[in-house]
Amino acid sequence: MGKVICVGLGPGDPELMSVKADRLVRSAPHVAYFRKAGYEGQARKIVEGMIGAEATEYPMEYPVTTEIPFADPEYNRLLSAFYDGWAERLAALAATETVLVLCEGDPFFYGSFMHLYTRLRARCPVEVVPGITGMSGCWTATGEPITWGDDVLTVVTATMPEDELTRRIGDTDALVVMKIGRNLEKLKRALTAAGKIDNAWLVERGTMPDQRVHRLCEAPAKVPYFSIAVVHGQGRRP
Amino acid sequence: MGKVICVGLGPGDPELMSVKADRLVRSAPHVAYFRKAGYEGQARKIVEGMIGAEATEYPMEYPVTTEIPFADPEYNRLLSAFYDGWAERLAALAATETVLVLCEGDPFFYGSFMHLYTRLRARCPVEVVPGITGMSGCWTATGEPITWGDDVLTVVTATMPEDELTRRIGDTDALVVMKIGRNLEKLKRALTAAGKIDNAWLVERGTMPDQRVHRLCEAPAKVPYFSIAVVHGQGRRP
Repeated sequence: MGKVICVGLGPGDPELMSVKADRLVRSAPHVAYFRKAGYEGQARKIVEGMIGAEATEYPMEYPVTTEIPFADPEYNRLLSAFYDGWAERLAALAATETVLVLCEGDPFFYGSFMHLYTRLRARCPVEVVPGITGMSGCWTATGEPITWGDDVLTVVTATMPEDELTRRIGDTDALVVMKIGRNLEKLKRALTAAGKIDNAWLVERGTMPDQRVHRLCEAPAKVPYFSIAVVHGQGRRP
Repeated sequence: MGKVICVGLGPGDPELMSVKADRLVRSAPHVAYFRKAGYEGQARKIVEGMIGAEATEYPMEYPVTTEIPFADPEYNRLLSAFYDGWAERLAALAATETVLVLCEGDPFFYGSFMHLYTRLRARCPVEVVPGITGMSGCWTATGEPITWGDDVLTVVTATMPEDELTRRIGDTDALVVMKIGRNLEKLKRALTAAGKIDNAWLVERGTMPDQRVHRLCEAPAKVPYFSIAVVHGQGRRP
């Protein structure tokens, strides 16, 4: 009997993959990964040159990313059918083979694999290998520690309503903001309203070769999907 | 000229160290790490069998851990002198040598190295290598994803006042609680008051050989320092 193993690949630098992930990627006979149709995919890019010549690859292409709003029932219907279909294929394969699913960052932290995981675990053995989160890569890139002493850290997505975002930014010591993309202007207003815009940083593609770190108020108007905003905590420091 | 490199070692399983950390540990001529006096130290334990026979080791023993309350000025004075002294020694060594500082988890996430970092960076080159956080290891151990869709994640320390802890637990989707130790009873009361005690998990020594996962309401009265509590988010899942 085989199984499905999902490996977290970390924030982008292949050297930041775990020893276990590195070993699994180099030896896997079947390798699946998510990607936007027409793109190479971030997870696949991280392991470039590492997958064995004999391995079979399974690009799992999202039927929709940002073309339909999350709230539209059609978004849910399309993605649900997509995950159902791939769970079916991977479970069939895992009856006899070991299948590796690649995931950037840490799989259980906002990762797409979770939607396969809930569908697979009643049908075959599933193992998950944690990875360094994108946010760890990004706050390390700023050169400043994120949490000190008893600091509270809040992780939010910039997709939430502006007043709620402002309230949460005001109510924490350290802050990480994910899913910025089109919400950058809203995020700037919320940080300004909460009095934290001058302490906010934006990291594009943390730990990747084209990494860029800006003060958030100086960030370009258009930022890539792999951008994370950070406000560092200021807790106890002997 | 040498430098100081601090490597995050991840949550405990040596295979969850990054490829970069693994390489640095095996080749470092000078290896420093924090520990409580009289103990081996968690960071040192993770790299057992990996440090070169020719390497020099520098155990940095805390002058105080929980014997004096944080709020006591003496606590601050003792730790401050401790960090000053080691910053002095490591900077002197880094004038000509490369010195590796080991850190469990991710160095910039509640790590002691930050106190050396602020003292060292004006004096010698300092590099920080992120690691898988202890919390990633722990939520992976529960077998349930921590954040879905647009969930808010709040990370708190159980050291905070009970009413504040209760408020924060009630005001988040996903929760991670660090620094539990003697605060377990307070944490149980706060989770109960916030209506989340039945959804809370306690993970002892996540990813280590003696890992244990409990429903928090069934956790033993005394838990080790490397324990983390988790409440999973329940966000969007197509």
